[in-house]
Amino acid sequence: MREVFHGDLDQVTSDLVEMCALVRTAVERATQAILDADVQVAEQVIADDHTIDQTRHELDALAIDLLARQAPVATDLRRVVTAMRMSGEIERMGDLARHVAKLTRLRYPEPAVPDELRDLITRMGDVANRIVAKAGVVVAEHDGLEVHEVELIDDELDALHREMYTRITSESWTYGPGTAVDMALLGRYYERFGDHAVSVARRVNYMVTGELDGLPDVDERDDII
Amino acid sequence: MREVFHGDLDQVTSDLVEMCALVRTAVERATQAILDADVQVAEQVIADDHTIDQTRHELDALAIDLLARQAPVATDLRRVVTAMRMSGEIERMGDLARHVAKLTRLRYPEPAVPDELRDLITRMGDVANRIVAKAGVVVAEHDGLEVHEVELIDDELDALHREMYTRITSESWTYGPGTAVDMALLGRYYERFGDHAVSVARRVNYMVTGELDGLPDVDERDDII
Repeated sequence: MREVFHGDLDQVTSDLVEMCALVRTAVERATQAILDADVQVAEQVIADDHTIDQTRHELDALAIDLLARQAPVATDLRRVVTAMRMSGEIERMGDLARHVAKLTRLRYPEPAVPDELRDLITRMGDVANRIVAKAGVVVAEHDGLEVHEVELIDDELDALHREMYTRITSESWTYGPGTAVDMALLGRYYERFGDHAVSVARRVNYMVTGELDGLPDVDERDDII
Repeated sequence: MREVFHGDLDQVTSDLVEMCALVRTAVERATQAILDADVQVAEQVIADDHTIDQTRHELDALAIDLLARQAPVATDLRRVVTAMRMSGEIERMGDLARHVAKLTRLRYPEPAVPDELRDLITRMGDVANRIVAKAGVVVAEHDGLEVHEVELIDDELDALHREMYTRITSESWTYGPGTAVDMALLGRYYERFGDHAVSVARRVNYMVTGELDGLPDVDERDDII
């Protein structure tokens, strides 16, 4: 019975890791799509988001089934409950990648990103890719000690987000309010991506330590600018 | 034992209803604050968000405790798991109200909202207030049948959000990119508020019917514009 239980728990973990891998691909492709105004790649990201949603549903169903059949307590219970929450965070990261892809499609055949912000978006995409890769490692290795590293990567994203805000609201902005609005929302998608990764890492920490104190206000890292 | 269990479950429900009431106050005050450039009211909303977060933590702790002590199955299990998810959605609505308050503070003593958008923000605030009130009733009465009504209110919010987007990106926009960005983000906060209310209502529906099919992609209603 216990062996079955731990086998199922391992399945839950590997589903989470798989979701992180899918999200990593999604954000990489979405960034490429918006930089190249490549609507085919954008469509692919949008379509593939269903796989992430589906994996989440399966994971949640398995977790509920585990609770019903096995009635876990203590650490095992924390693992199951935490996994159900992490699945929501990771799925949301997939949605944010999908949003980037949808902006590409909305502006196509025009490029959504003005030339002078290409470098900034490239960097945001790189950091987003890095943070989800790191979150995947934290989940796979149950390593709550790495939370701080994920937070440091998120700080990079926050700095890029502030840079975006400064650029689009500066006196010298020449692309008009419509493009400023697009870039504000795009910046926010990447920035929120990082917040969810931090939340995932902190939940792993909770799972390992049982310390609720370290637990996120989901949005403590979400500030308006 | 069963009676204790159901007493605890009732406590969970009344915590959720209490959270909805707190969020309703928050969004009402936040809207008033941003329209009147009233930084005192804004500070109050920001400070009071901790109460919402705290209620959520207590609710989640009680739910985990319930799972550990009582090992519920079937409908009872669904009620506990669903409550833990709804608490996250409602807490997030509180964060969005806090964002509105923070924008007020950021622009103070200037009013954040240009005169010509006051009416639109007033309407968004009214609809947001209405949707969280409705969500609270759905939670209190376990009435999954009301989901559609919540969705209809959310459609109103979505329409107002699109109107905002049209206004700030129109040729006749005279307030510059900075204000356009502020209003884009403000519109998005209200719009997301509605999505979370729909998600809460759908989760009640899942709790009542056990139908996973009706369950949300959390963000199916979250489109980029």
